Amino acid sequence: MATLIKDGTISLNTCPSVSAFAAAVGKMEGEGPLASSFDYIAEDVTLGESSWEKSESKLQQIAFSTALSKGSFSEKNIDVLFAGDLLNQCVSSSYGARDTEIPFLGLFGACSTMAEGLGLASVFVDSGSAVNAAAVTSSHFCSAERQFRLPVNYGGQRTPTAQWTATAAGCAVVSPHNKAPYVRAFTVGKIKDMGITDANNMGAAMAAAAYDTVSRHLCNTGQSIDNFDLILTGDLGKVGRDILIELFKKDGVDISEKHNDCGIMLFDPKKQDVHAGGSGCGCSASVLCSYVLDEIQQGKLNKVLFAATGALMSPTIVQQGESIPGISHAVELSSC
Amino acid sequence: MATLIKDGTISLNTCPSVSAFAAAVGKMEGEGPLASSFDYIAEDVTLGESSWEKSESKLQQIAFSTALSKGSFSEKNIDVLFAGDLLNQCVSSSYGARDTEIPFLGLFGACSTMAEGLGLASVFVDSGSAVNAAAVTSSHFCSAERQFRLPVNYGGQRTPTAQWTATAAGCAVVSPHNKAPYVRAFTVGKIKDMGITDANNMGAAMAAAAYDTVSRHLCNTGQSIDNFDLILTGDLGKVGRDILIELFKKDGVDISEKHNDCGIMLFDPKKQDVHAGGSGCGCSASVLCSYVLDEIQQGKLNKVLFAATGALMSPTIVQQGESIPGISHAVELSSC
Repeated sequence: MATLIKDGTISLNTCPSVSAFAAAVGKMEGEGPLASSFDYIAEDVTLGESSWEKSESKLQQIAFSTALSKGSFSEKNIDVLFAGDLLNQCVSSSYGARDTEIPFLGLFGACSTMAEGLGLASVFVDSGSAVNAAAVTSSHFCSAERQFRLPVNYGGQRTPTAQWTATAAGCAVVSPHNKAPYVRAFTVGKIKDMGITDANNMGAAMAAAAYDTVSRHLCNTGQSIDNFDLILTGDLGKVGRDILIELFKKDGVDISEKHNDCGIMLFDPKKQDVHAGGSGCGCSASVLCSYVLDEIQQGKLNKVLFAATGALMSPTIVQQGESIPGISHAVELSSC
Repeated sequence: MATLIKDGTISLNTCPSVSAFAAAVGKMEGEGPLASSFDYIAEDVTLGESSWEKSESKLQQIAFSTALSKGSFSEKNIDVLFAGDLLNQCVSSSYGARDTEIPFLGLFGACSTMAEGLGLASVFVDSGSAVNAAAVTSSHFCSAERQFRLPVNYGGQRTPTAQWTATAAGCAVVSPHNKAPYVRAFTVGKIKDMGITDANNMGAAMAAAAYDTVSRHLCNTGQSIDNFDLILTGDLGKVGRDILIELFKKDGVDISEKHNDCGIMLFDPKKQDVHAGGSGCGCSASVLCSYVLDEIQQGKLNKVLFAATGALMSPTIVQQGESIPGISHAVELSSC
């Protein structure tokens, strides 16, 4: 039985387990610092498919089927699948799950989708609405660039604040309390708008949402950053991280040591030219569903607040002169 | 405490109440047979806004604020808002809720969104994850036509199977068990693909999903259509309704008397030239959150299965030659 603590924070009293997880990434992500943690690294960005949308769907399918196989689950064991992505009408998710018989709930949270899905899956398991619930999401550099900015083969110059949409997917299966990692609480995000109108500066658009959600989670659960080994946002990148640190400094809190960001962790800034860092639903999903959940499972990280962030950006609305709102959902994970 | 019965059907054991609901519609919808049931009828399709996306956002805001005011709620009473729509990146929902401080979970279920949101809101209230949870969705003829087919001012000829995207929004607030209407169960949809590639024949693309969800709900809950006063799909239109009736006939079940469809109910086919009927997230939302919930509240309808249907259609993927999958989520509502 879940309990609403207050103001969007839900305590998952049965502490469900993340019983299986997997990450599938593209070639470039597979050359980054987390390479050894990934379950699957594609040989090329097409994954043998005829369109970028289909390549992204396939990556999502691989993450999902790998998580199931790592947890010795069959599709019949999954009572509900929460899925979403960045593409118009979330097509990589719906086409990715089209050939399954799994009850499906589509989400849109932009790059915050992994936390939204993981939180909802945990509520479902905690409440008895599902025995096993899965959350999956993905992004693909080429499908996202074409849709949100310019086709990749246009060869446009990227700005210093731009982030690199990761070609990546992650999947987590939540099951009743059994073994670490455990899901302890879920804080639902609020929409925050800092007035950013630059579609190449997503970090700035999302930082206020991350600040609101992380500080609200700490306040509502009566904890401070000292209770956590890692405050993990995804994907603020370098620009957004700096803003987040500044926002916490105003409260007299220095989060710089405890904080890391999936967009910063995924790529090596010295060798990989990704400007402000990685982004995309698949960025935080793949970092969480590989290295981070591994570390929690092994007890190397005891308590992690996973606060994925999304820029709710639509090219149509940006062209109409509107600013870009952000959102961040947070899931508290622990090793015991 | 919710119970997973089986195969996607969740019993909401506390039977939460739909404590408030409202529907806001455009001028043409306000000239249809349900006119007297709507809370707000716009004088023109712009609603005084400078873009169709902003007009749709405003309609969603009106439905939401009217539902709150009818239920004597303030925004602070709403613990979580589930919202989604048809537009790319669900912008009418995220921009609609941008000025609130309400925890927000974005959904994508195309025209099935009202049932998805109402089901999730009910799980949250039933499980103690929220005291009051709201579900809202919208659609707008002009924003949808431009995005999915052709700009309205192009004046393209519509095919006989085409449906008319409703300019409409609906909102329902779910609260602990108190008064009718009650939410008794939620069946999560599965993605079904009948191989339809015609973006002007959504009814056919969705009928198989509605059949799967309705028959699965009946089977999983041990009920037959005799237990219901109304099996309400939305929005199959006339084409999809005929297919649904045929699919049930193969099982020896005649649902023609018990079945109705929000897309058929919203407009008057003799006076309003909408071809196969209405569609859009706002179509089923506005029909449910006006006439149907009113009738249940008054005890004129005792048991209703609300099975909203969505075509998970993306112009990008249709241009790549892919067929259009459908999904349908069902919520069982009762007067006692």
